[in-house]
Amino acid sequence: MPKLTPKLTPKLTKDDVLKKAEELKNWGRWGPDDELGVLNFITPQDIVNAARLVKKGRVFRLGLELDENGPQRGIFGGRWNPLHQMLATGTDAVAGKHDVTPGLRYADDAINLPTQAATQWDALSHVFLEEQMWNGYPATLVDSRGAHRNGIEKFADKMVGRGVLLDVARHKGVPYLQDGYGITVADLDATAAKQGVEVRRADFVIIRTGQMEDRLQKGEWGGYAGGDAPGLAFESLDWIHGKQIAGICSDTWGIEVRPNDTGPEVFQPWHWVTIPAIGIVHGEIFYLKELAEDCAADGVYEFFFCAPPLVISRGTGSPINPQAIK
Amino acid sequence: MPKLTPKLTPKLTKDDVLKKAEELKNWGRWGPDDELGVLNFITPQDIVNAARLVKKGRVFRLGLELDENGPQRGIFGGRWNPLHQMLATGTDAVAGKHDVTPGLRYADDAINLPTQAATQWDALSHVFLEEQMWNGYPATLVDSRGAHRNGIEKFADKMVGRGVLLDVARHKGVPYLQDGYGITVADLDATAAKQGVEVRRADFVIIRTGQMEDRLQKGEWGGYAGGDAPGLAFESLDWIHGKQIAGICSDTWGIEVRPNDTGPEVFQPWHWVTIPAIGIVHGEIFYLKELAEDCAADGVYEFFFCAPPLVISRGTGSPINPQAIK
Amino acid sequence: MPKLTPKLTPKLTKDDVLKKAEELKNWGRWGPDDELGVLNFITPQDIVNAARLVKKGRVFRLGLELDENGPQRGIFGGRWNPLHQMLATGTDAVAGKHDVTPGLRYADDAINLPTQAATQWDALSHVFLEEQMWNGYPATLVDSRGAHRNGIEKFADKMVGRGVLLDVARHKGVPYLQDGYGITVADLDATAAKQGVEVRRADFVIIRTGQMEDRLQKGEWGGYAGGDAPGLAFESLDWIHGKQIAGICSDTWGIEVRPNDTGPEVFQPWHWVTIPAIGIVHGEIFYLKELAEDCAADGVYEFFFCAPPLVISRGTGSPINPQAIK
Amino acid sequence: MPKLTPKLTPKLTKDDVLKKAEELKNWGRWGPDDELGVLNFITPQDIVNAARLVKKGRVFRLGLELDENGPQRGIFGGRWNPLHQMLATGTDAVAGKHDVTPGLRYADDAINLPTQAATQWDALSHVFLEEQMWNGYPATLVDSRGAHRNGIEKFADKMVGRGVLLDVARHKGVPYLQDGYGITVADLDATAAKQGVEVRRADFVIIRTGQMEDRLQKGEWGGYAGGDAPGLAFESLDWIHGKQIAGICSDTWGIEVRPNDTGPEVFQPWHWVTIPAIGIVHGEIFYLKELAEDCAADGVYEFFFCAPPLVISRGTGSPINPQAIK
Repeated sequence: MPKLTPKLTPKLTKDDVLKKAEELKNWGRWGPDDELGVLNFITPQDIVNAARLVKKGRVFRLGLELDENGPQRGIFGGRWNPLHQMLATGTDAVAGKHDVTPGLRYADDAINLPTQAATQWDALSHVFLEEQMWNGYPATLVDSRGAHRNGIEKFADKMVGRGVLLDVARHKGVPYLQDGYGITVADLDATAAKQGVEVRRADFVIIRTGQMEDRLQKGEWGGYAGGDAPGLAFESLDWIHGKQIAGICSDTWGIEVRPNDTGPEVFQPWHWVTIPAIGIVHGEIFYLKELAEDCAADGVYEFFFCAPPLVISRGTGSPINPQAIK
Repeated sequence: MPKLTPKLTPKLTKDDVLKKAEELKNWGRWGPDDELGVLNFITPQDIVNAARLVKKGRVFRLGLELDENGPQRGIFGGRWNPLHQMLATGTDAVAGKHDVTPGLRYADDAINLPTQAATQWDALSHVFLEEQMWNGYPATLVDSRGAHRNGIEKFADKMVGRGVLLDVARHKGVPYLQDGYGITVADLDATAAKQGVEVRRADFVIIRTGQMEDRLQKGEWGGYAGGDAPGLAFESLDWIHGKQIAGICSDTWGIEVRPNDTGPEVFQPWHWVTIPAIGIVHGEIFYLKELAEDCAADGVYEFFFCAPPLVISRGTGSPINPQAIK
Repeated sequence: MPKLTPKLTPKLTKDDVLKKAEELKNWGRWGPDDELGVLNFITPQDIVNAARLVKKGRVFRLGLELDENGPQRGIFGGRWNPLHQMLATGTDAVAGKHDVTPGLRYADDAINLPTQAATQWDALSHVFLEEQMWNGYPATLVDSRGAHRNGIEKFADKMVGRGVLLDVARHKGVPYLQDGYGITVADLDATAAKQGVEVRRADFVIIRTGQMEDRLQKGEWGGYAGGDAPGLAFESLDWIHGKQIAGICSDTWGIEVRPNDTGPEVFQPWHWVTIPAIGIVHGEIFYLKELAEDCAADGVYEFFFCAPPLVISRGTGSPINPQAIK
Repeated sequence: MPKLTPKLTPKLTKDDVLKKAEELKNWGRWGPDDELGVLNFITPQDIVNAARLVKKGRVFRLGLELDENGPQRGIFGGRWNPLHQMLATGTDAVAGKHDVTPGLRYADDAINLPTQAATQWDALSHVFLEEQMWNGYPATLVDSRGAHRNGIEKFADKMVGRGVLLDVARHKGVPYLQDGYGITVADLDATAAKQGVEVRRADFVIIRTGQMEDRLQKGEWGGYAGGDAPGLAFESLDWIHGKQIAGICSDTWGIEVRPNDTGPEVFQPWHWVTIPAIGIVHGEIFYLKELAEDCAADGVYEFFFCAPPLVISRGTGSPINPQAIK
């Protein structure tokens, strides 16, 4: 596979990042009480139109399996792979354990996972800009009891609309982009053009880098969760803001290229701007293999997208299993 | 509110239940390796047709909030309300805890819940018929490591189709049906007729009893999770089987009327037949208030239904936030 | 049972509480890096002497059972009864699930509990005095990653010494003290005198109110965890400080009387002084029934006390099963 | 360091193992209802005598830190390092989050861990012999609700007595024994003789291999939890049974040498005999560094031993922090 030369963003200082955040900031745009951010772009008519994209009745699950083989390898402190525990089993049942009078033989289970363990939505309370979060709410409104503003439960009926896949890796002719490759605006536009799909206001845009599929094929996650990755360059912020899209998603842990070309004060500079300033939610660790293959096969890169979060009160994210329906 | 006289099913013995299971058993119908059950009824064309039901672009979330105020009060042993815990907070961020070099201020959290804590799909591994589960697999295939057959992950891209609400409570003219009221086939047919909606092959049918709304209004769950409830009478099994529906859902903890009129050997007789014999999945603890109000207002009781489970490997169920889209 | 008239402390303002904290503050007494507080009073000779109290070889467990029947009923937000979950079972084993080659048939489990769920040590990081904790460390050193100072792990080999039971309820001639009864210094001294035991420097003093036994007998915890309780009056702070004891324990959820006679700004005023100012650790929810009966029978109220915390790194407490050995 | 030639036990078949279990089986020895096994050997006088070993007032904690740096690296399926989560923090407190009226500023936390995560007691329900456990109880008495016989709670006041350290590594003149080195009866006797300590009825015997200290020093656990290890050879079973000791402990994950020289049907043959047949409990993953250094320094290898389990109802083990007191 040919090694692509990543086009890095210019060396960014904290001031550059804060300046960009100020420039693209949507605070107040939908009033002082807003907790939806750019999801406000989605109109009922957009949803009706999106449903018309269901033409062959094929459904793709974009959620990664939740189990002990997930990518959380302790690199980013404090996250773990899902713990799935049985509360009642078939072996118990057959051993007669449920045959009280009256009886019902059953199995039951529980799951314990960080909301960011695998495929997930970030909430608008997930990243802060200095001492504030989306729409200017104080960051301290997120305490040990959860996010008292901008919680994920606000999105309970909002994650529905038109989805567009931008398969940058396929467009570049590689199975996966190299770690550290920063996807430019030119890359995004060229991919869309080649695919014959237009990115529109209110879209959920899904970027495919191929990184997850590479790691799944190798059977080794390595630094997938928290380490280097291909992803959107800093300059993509203007594109995201200008296009007025409603959500941005990818098959990597953080959408953004890693490392991004920043000085010592800033980690993930793109995050500083997207969630808290623009008010756009991230969909991360999306599983895209079958969807991408189908889009390549039929040349249709748009679809109905339905990705409801769990209604976690005061959550800063939610595990999800997004559905792309063509 | 007038007290309805519940029409109870005849006193059932274990033999009656086993006989009914044998009569309606779909094992082998889709081959010896099937793990989907009656979800097999859904065709791609059904999904395309269902998407055409999106006409006004309104989305309803049918997932109950996941938090400490949920219905799990320890009545049915071993379940608990969701535990939501913060791994990183805004108060930490503002106290400078994330300002390592380089830094990103963020919040993070985790959730620990039984898959049956609130709004949920049962998997086909959730209930057993004697020593077997759906399609004849041994119940012992569900052990402490999970469901090695009929796991919820098999439904990852299957919970999409036409949804139909049968608002039995509204049809009966009551805010909610009484605990112990057994909904008959006549009730189901009359409700559909009055609503002007047809129940068809491959539908996800959602039964509204009003019980959840009553408990939410009272601010007291009482025995909601595991106790008495209004719900489908035993005779509804023939209706479910005959209609060839794909899923059956309700706003109660177990869809089935409680108590059901059974002798001492059998608890929840309807469960013995639905999941393991017919192979139909249950959607339980659905939150229906706004959807029901909208249907009553516009007279349209059918919609696009999209309710993806989390992809829990070997799970016997999944928390969900189903979406009804009109 | 005669109703005792509780002798309440005078109405306390926040200033009163802060003034008392200032008066009894031990900060710096054992140097600027100390994280042990009054546990420093215990000398090796104290431990040798305490071991000599083992005269009949009888051991008492003071830990309450950890299970679903515990006192956490959601009154004090965010705590739950222990969740005990099986990772491998005998039913699995007998069903042949462990008979891989080579095999071992076994059972395994896990437990998930708040450190304050039942019998527990508080760490010196558990309660703050304004913006500081024990020895003057900033409270912000306790963040979402844990207690970076004054963690429970510092006590890993410190909870050993002489134990003394003050059975106030028995001394008063009642099975249990009423909720709201404030135990005075006079009560403590009279109890010790009647029991013929002296409270000395470096002792672990255990106060019995009988409240837990009453609730266990009734089979209903009620507001045990977080509600009203008998317990030490505010004036006991001087006694604790003056006696130079090493630990203070009780059979209630918080040792302190509830309600304590304070104005609106202060909750649990005694807590404001004990842990952060005096630097004395609390042992709470101790199960005392058999120990108390034995002491009453043989008239010996002193014993060897060994109550090791789990070595929870950066913990603010630990579940324990203290041992009183006579 | 010189490489020791491990003296392996002869190649064992399943029949050999079952025959040894039959030979050493203590079932019924203390009646048909016994759940204590060889802990029955401990008399009150033994405890009194053990307390007399406290001569210099020095306490050693034998519990490993419970945190994310523990040895559970997923090798033995389904175990994880402790998850420590904060329920309330000092950063919240300082941000004014607890200043409700009336207020108390505090921190709170929870811990979620397998009972076998780190330093731990196995219960007598932890390992089965064919279809039975200790004293002949059916293994199926351990189901998804826990161990209905032989639960760890039965040991709540039993883990107190004389402790003896056998520092085999030091006796052999090496910092640690090689993985796969099987400690023989001759090794045990020679170590005791050299140390000048006698192993007696009712002792808790602690074997030091040095493996844990080696891994801690290297900062890499490798296969510590579940992989190869030095440890007791199969022949030690006769010694354990004959000596009538009350508990057997070590600084490795399973006490027993790994690999043990068995054929394909048997994994950990020593375990098949100790827990279910002899009825002796295992103490595993003990942290021994300071204790071993002190014993080497003063030549005293006996001490008062107090290692209370948490009172986990129906538990198959418990995390512990054993105390050796000299």
